[in-house]
Amino acid sequence: MPITANDTNRKSWLEVPFNSDFPIQNIPFGVFLTKENIVTVGTRIGDFAIDLGALQQLNYFEGIELTDDMFMQDTLNDFISDGQKTWRLVRNRIAEIFDEKNLKLQDNTKDRDIIIFEMEDIEMQLPVLIGDYTDFYSSKEHATNVGKMFRDPENALLPNWLHIPVGYHGRSSTIIPSGIPVHRPMGQTLPNGETTPVFGPSRSVDFELETAFITTDVNIMGENIAVSEAEDYIFGMVLLNDWSARDIQKWEYVPLGPFLAKNFATSISPWIVTMDALDPFRTRGPKQEPTPLPYLQQKGKHSFDINLEVAIQPEKSEATVISRSNFKYMYWTMSQQLAHHTSNGCRVNSGDMMGSGTISGPTPDSYGSMLELSWGGKNPIKLKDGTERKFINDNDTVIMKGYCLNGQVRIGFGEVSSKLLPPFVRK
Amino acid sequence: MPITANDTNRKSWLEVPFNSDFPIQNIPFGVFLTKENIVTVGTRIGDFAIDLGALQQLNYFEGIELTDDMFMQDTLNDFISDGQKTWRLVRNRIAEIFDEKNLKLQDNTKDRDIIIFEMEDIEMQLPVLIGDYTDFYSSKEHATNVGKMFRDPENALLPNWLHIPVGYHGRSSTIIPSGIPVHRPMGQTLPNGETTPVFGPSRSVDFELETAFITTDVNIMGENIAVSEAEDYIFGMVLLNDWSARDIQKWEYVPLGPFLAKNFATSISPWIVTMDALDPFRTRGPKQEPTPLPYLQQKGKHSFDINLEVAIQPEKSEATVISRSNFKYMYWTMSQQLAHHTSNGCRVNSGDMMGSGTISGPTPDSYGSMLELSWGGKNPIKLKDGTERKFINDNDTVIMKGYCLNGQVRIGFGEVSSKLLPPFVRK
Repeated sequence: MPITANDTNRKSWLEVPFNSDFPIQNIPFGVFLTKENIVTVGTRIGDFAIDLGALQQLNYFEGIELTDDMFMQDTLNDFISDGQKTWRLVRNRIAEIFDEKNLKLQDNTKDRDIIIFEMEDIEMQLPVLIGDYTDFYSSKEHATNVGKMFRDPENALLPNWLHIPVGYHGRSSTIIPSGIPVHRPMGQTLPNGETTPVFGPSRSVDFELETAFITTDVNIMGENIAVSEAEDYIFGMVLLNDWSARDIQKWEYVPLGPFLAKNFATSISPWIVTMDALDPFRTRGPKQEPTPLPYLQQKGKHSFDINLEVAIQPEKSEATVISRSNFKYMYWTMSQQLAHHTSNGCRVNSGDMMGSGTISGPTPDSYGSMLELSWGGKNPIKLKDGTERKFINDNDTVIMKGYCLNGQVRIGFGEVSSKLLPPFVRK
Repeated sequence: MPITANDTNRKSWLEVPFNSDFPIQNIPFGVFLTKENIVTVGTRIGDFAIDLGALQQLNYFEGIELTDDMFMQDTLNDFISDGQKTWRLVRNRIAEIFDEKNLKLQDNTKDRDIIIFEMEDIEMQLPVLIGDYTDFYSSKEHATNVGKMFRDPENALLPNWLHIPVGYHGRSSTIIPSGIPVHRPMGQTLPNGETTPVFGPSRSVDFELETAFITTDVNIMGENIAVSEAEDYIFGMVLLNDWSARDIQKWEYVPLGPFLAKNFATSISPWIVTMDALDPFRTRGPKQEPTPLPYLQQKGKHSFDINLEVAIQPEKSEATVISRSNFKYMYWTMSQQLAHHTSNGCRVNSGDMMGSGTISGPTPDSYGSMLELSWGGKNPIKLKDGTERKFINDNDTVIMKGYCLNGQVRIGFGEVSSKLLPPFVRK
């Protein structure tokens, strides 16, 4: 089925501001709450949110086989579960409905009033009920930087890293959409030079710049999928801030990996940008040397050219961009991650989310965490207001943005932005 | 509210075989499927399964405030979410209904036919939709044994172990009830002495003898709960087999912990035994030295005397018990685990599950995994049929049982039993 929604010649009758992340060629999917307290599945064009539940009820999806309540839900799980064919039919249809040449909805003021909202009038929700969340560790630069700082500078990369898309399980219950603030976590840490730990607020709260992909139902338990098929099971991508408390992490993570250092919060951007929308931005990832084992081998372009940036905005001050990176630097591809994840028969369901791991580029200004940007606190980062940061301060807002750009179109993610509040104090 | 369901003088009018795990003092909760393809929440007395949905519809819960469809569901999540007061009212009422002195249902053949099933006529399901699954590592003996084998025999216990109930996130999507077989997983391993990994069937599939507890809604994100309150949020316990592929684990687990070595399957016993039923079996755990940090300190009896055993049953042969252990050996209590889990504000929901970690006792015949029982394969275990095991063979069934016993009553879990099938081969 052709992805006609990607037609770069198409213009929408809805106004799209210059440099918007959401032209009619994007058509991401999300869930939003209206002022009337109605939750619905939606999409976005320019600065307008579009109620897909209303579109369906008013018969604009006629001819596409959909369950009656496909979009009048508080998650995208059912829609995602329906598979790639349905996603494509719906996205292509939305493009047609909002094409400037199509007058059907354009000229129907009554329907428009029901279907279209201004972004400032709605509130974005978590787009999916995330059953299981896995976080990978697939940036060679990030793994090397961490290895240099905490282990052996001469053998920074662990022996398994070039063979395995290393990953671990994260916590689903604390994944939140952009805009929700996060408390600085309390936790156990071992002060430098001490042998007895203390309990108190983390003193090194960090972000990790990541993306994540959301899957449809992939396999039944016990079976695996081939790397060549894996992309068909990926619905789309979001930006992800993997909040991390470095001091808690350092003390707790051996031998079972990070736990409380990470599970206090994970923030994601609320619009899922489909793999179809990202298709024009395919690129080759870095050469994989040594050649991966056969179950991870793939040919062609399986990485994506997605520009990423991180800014810190102190309270009552302007934001400073502190890192500019790109998803294309990632060593392991999403399809390799997913094939690896099912290689042992592990079941992956609709709405499961898999994070990329911190995306660090090759240069110091493209690192994806304060840990790396300030090199463990040795080189504080200067902000525009004259203050310095080794890690994140209380009341700082961390803002991540991502977009693809070629000569013809810009496809963006919007942002994931969240403020770090002081520690929670029980009243 | 008194726990009258624990009255040891009470007898049921339903027959309870000698030494049954399910006398009228137990009243566990589960979900079962009838031959008519109806799924319902239920309990068990002797070898009878009781349909709580039918009990409610026929008005046997009159006077207890319950939503109309509380029990006509395929999970216990809503019931668990209702909290301790409701659990206790319902469990006490069930004890009354099945008390031999109570003739109401006893003499009503029509109602009995609708409500009561023989165990052999129903099929147990997963009792809860598990949002997040955490697995702890709280047996000092197990952590020490593993440390001796894989790290430093002189410093087997890592420095954080005596201060933190170490835990990590597991995978929810592959948690299955007793009776469902498991395929031997495929995976990457590094053969001894080699530097290049290979991909193939795991050659060291192991069980881990564990229990797990299931929580109600504990906290809102960002807040924590005190260790002194933690037990109020625990609904009950099950037996858990944390299937593990040792060769995959060894190669993949540094630095982020076990992943594919564990997430191919986790088996649990289907009846959740409530904390109320276990209350008579409270005991003190081992002395904690050094004294934990204040947020983990507790007084009184917070461990439980639960006898545990593991048997291996080869195909077409009888079972051999290979380990006898007890939950009371665990160093960290469930309430300490839960308080630690929320200490950073991590949200814990109704239906979340937390595994104890492998339960190894002090003597070699009480170890909770083949890894320890065979000491890394050095001392194969002899079975009754004359064969030996270093790890689990294809078509072996691993059977775990657990029960509490005092002079007055036996409260048991039944079993978690599952067969290891050969690797899945794509047709």
